[in-house]
Amino acid sequence: MRSYSTSVLAHLFGIISIILLLVWLLHYREGIEYDSDNPLRVFNVHPFLMFFGFIFLVGQAIMSYHTVPGTHETQKIVHMTLHFIAIILGIVGICAVFKFHDMVNLVDVYSLHSWIGIGTFCLVGLQWLFGLTFMFPGSRQSRASLAPWHIAGGRALFYMAICAALTGLMERTAMLKLQPHQRESHLINFLGLSILLFGVFVDVTVGLAHFA
Amino acid sequence: MRSYSTSVLAHLFGIISIILLLVWLLHYREGIEYDSDNPLRVFNVHPFLMFFGFIFLVGQAIMSYHTVPGTHETQKIVHMTLHFIAIILGIVGICAVFKFHDMVNLVDVYSLHSWIGIGTFCLVGLQWLFGLTFMFPGSRQSRASLAPWHIAGGRALFYMAICAALTGLMERTAMLKLQPHQRESHLINFLGLSILLFGVFVDVTVGLAHFA
Repeated sequence: MRSYSTSVLAHLFGIISIILLLVWLLHYREGIEYDSDNPLRVFNVHPFLMFFGFIFLVGQAIMSYHTVPGTHETQKIVHMTLHFIAIILGIVGICAVFKFHDMVNLVDVYSLHSWIGIGTFCLVGLQWLFGLTFMFPGSRQSRASLAPWHIAGGRALFYMAICAALTGLMERTAMLKLQPHQRESHLINFLGLSILLFGVFVDVTVGLAHFA
Repeated sequence: MRSYSTSVLAHLFGIISIILLLVWLLHYREGIEYDSDNPLRVFNVHPFLMFFGFIFLVGQAIMSYHTVPGTHETQKIVHMTLHFIAIILGIVGICAVFKFHDMVNLVDVYSLHSWIGIGTFCLVGLQWLFGLTFMFPGSRQSRASLAPWHIAGGRALFYMAICAALTGLMERTAMLKLQPHQRESHLINFLGLSILLFGVFVDVTVGLAHFA
């Protein structure tokens, strides 16, 4: 019951984040299109897919043990499949930003945002491969000894992804040279807070479940 | 034993972060002084106290149940006292940035970093007051039902503080107009990664202990 109420808040802030992100990219910015000649439309694929495609789905996957009805096996398959889709969409989102850098001749991978983002994404890929061991029949004992690391590591990686998103918003605000107290700056700040609260409530949902 | 090895890593990255922070502020920048006529020296008090004074001590306080020898009561007093010192030093660190803004006529509290930072700091203050209930003799049952919220909330707040630090480094990089692949940019990126890993290993130390 406790976990349930926090997962509702997680969903609430996840959906608010998607709405704010779309208002930002479609109304204040140029729109979202991978195959565009306008590099800014190509760039916008990156924040959209990294949040809606990657972070939002990973959050859902993390909460699946507390939100998906059915057996533990069903929840496990949902957990693995959502992560798989998130990783594929994340790869497209990362390709978008490299394509944008090529189009406008910008240097790749120099900022703290890019270091955190790429590092986290690679570790999530490894964690997914490592997690496959839980899908196959094996020694129940060795799986039980791996589970704490998988859970603690997964929660840390999810928070690292939130850090990547927030540093990305900071980088974009600086690149767009937005002024203090401009309407778009406020929108981006609320988007950032909403993404942070999505992360917090996903994490608290998992955290409280340990005590249930 | 598992928690022990991750708390060693937490200490390692905590100390690396302090060293990189000092190299940045003392060697690349102007130094650290609250009562200076040079606004940049006043500003530098902010990152120094918010990491070394606040985040590092809060991390130590969080891990105290796993690192401090002695009874549970002793650990609890260490946990509370370290948080108290961290909050006092954090207040001085926040005052420093407001003093800097006054000296150079900058707008206060407009960036995502400042919103996350101030929000997190206020919530940590509330959490500390709320945590005092654990210091006084009371119904064991009601304290046991509050503990999961205190622990899950505290972990989330600690990660929010890490997010504040990383967005702060992004903001400073943009304000200083550092160029890609400049030596100081790399130093700040490594500092950011090190702070992130300090956060990760503090969190994993607490996370693994739940399964011990």
